[in-house]
Amino acid sequence: MKSKELALERVLPEEIEKRSFELITMELGGKVLNPEYEPVIKRVIHTTADFDYADNLIFSPHAVLEGIKALKEGVRIITDTNMGMAGINKKALKRNGCSISCFMSDEDVAEYAMLHHTTRAYASMDKAAKLSEDCIFAVGNAPTALVRLYELIKEGIICPRLIIGVPVGFVNVVQSKELIMSLPDIPFIVAKGRKGGSNVAAAIVNALLYQIQQP
Amino acid sequence: MKSKELALERVLPEEIEKRSFELITMELGGKVLNPEYEPVIKRVIHTTADFDYADNLIFSPHAVLEGIKALKEGVRIITDTNMGMAGINKKALKRNGCSISCFMSDEDVAEYAMLHHTTRAYASMDKAAKLSEDCIFAVGNAPTALVRLYELIKEGIICPRLIIGVPVGFVNVVQSKELIMSLPDIPFIVAKGRKGGSNVAAAIVNALLYQIQQP
Repeated sequence: MKSKELALERVLPEEIEKRSFELITMELGGKVLNPEYEPVIKRVIHTTADFDYADNLIFSPHAVLEGIKALKEGVRIITDTNMGMAGINKKALKRNGCSISCFMSDEDVAEYAMLHHTTRAYASMDKAAKLSEDCIFAVGNAPTALVRLYELIKEGIICPRLIIGVPVGFVNVVQSKELIMSLPDIPFIVAKGRKGGSNVAAAIVNALLYQIQQP
Repeated sequence: MKSKELALERVLPEEIEKRSFELITMELGGKVLNPEYEPVIKRVIHTTADFDYADNLIFSPHAVLEGIKALKEGVRIITDTNMGMAGINKKALKRNGCSISCFMSDEDVAEYAMLHHTTRAYASMDKAAKLSEDCIFAVGNAPTALVRLYELIKEGIICPRLIIGVPVGFVNVVQSKELIMSLPDIPFIVAKGRKGGSNVAAAIVNALLYQIQQP
């Protein structure tokens, strides 16, 4: 009888990611992915081991190219969780001169949320709207953040470079994503349905960053 | 025709989580969950919107009670990602006098991994093994961390209070979890199969913390 240790596949540390992507490609079989979207879809599957994302991820035309362009220009990224912020590759951000912020734990955001009887996620989008620059928004947790982004865009107050709209859950998650997908002029990458998460948001940002070739 | 905004469910900010758990319970229908495991299973589904976890999560006998006991005693938690660490409720940790560490970005860990031609996750478990205390390990990313924990336990070097073994992915993920589930005397909570993640690891720790009633 084989011992359990023997069942481990021998893969060098630096080869693990490459081997994972090979296995994902094999398992996707004959499924044809749009080459622009493929690196994003595969990295999200790599992050979740969930092949539903091969069908769930919805891209506005050229959303990936728009996102990469913004990152090359040193865009600021706003996330709705510290967890999402922690999962984004800081070295790759720095190489491109990008910055990243999450306002969820800020005292002024907590006060604003309490005063307006709303969520901190909603309030943190209002704080982001006061920035002088157009940002990438990576929303992996709070549908209320997406709802507020939708309102701010409709009111002409912000014009995001890209919205990564992948909150997860049960209350208004599906609806909030539909709102973002109804926007005609804003680049978006959305995980249709209930699934998503901070890990998915971070994986999508990383998938864009890793496509930027360094000089 | 209803506007898209009207389709949003009206739920007060402080009621969103409660409403989510109601929807999860409804959707689980008649499925009978072990009451000890139920809060963990439901919180993981809340975090992922993935009902596979109703069947995937495997608990050693009394793993939840053992984990709660350790947390009440102010145990130290070791994670294999900064993302997992970011997702764990710091206020709840502090209330119980618990601490948390992730050694993945430490320079000595990077050097050790390079020298021994292994992963930083593996090396970071060796660093944790040098601590004078028995810890809870929350592994959401690296199967090599679980493999090293298994070896260190078999060698009698460590005796974890609980292993949360939920790495995600394709290379040795399934096997590494089987190794942990083969340990007869170590409490574990494992996501059988390929699925898991730093978000799942954090959700499990939080599910344990939230069951501790404050005096």
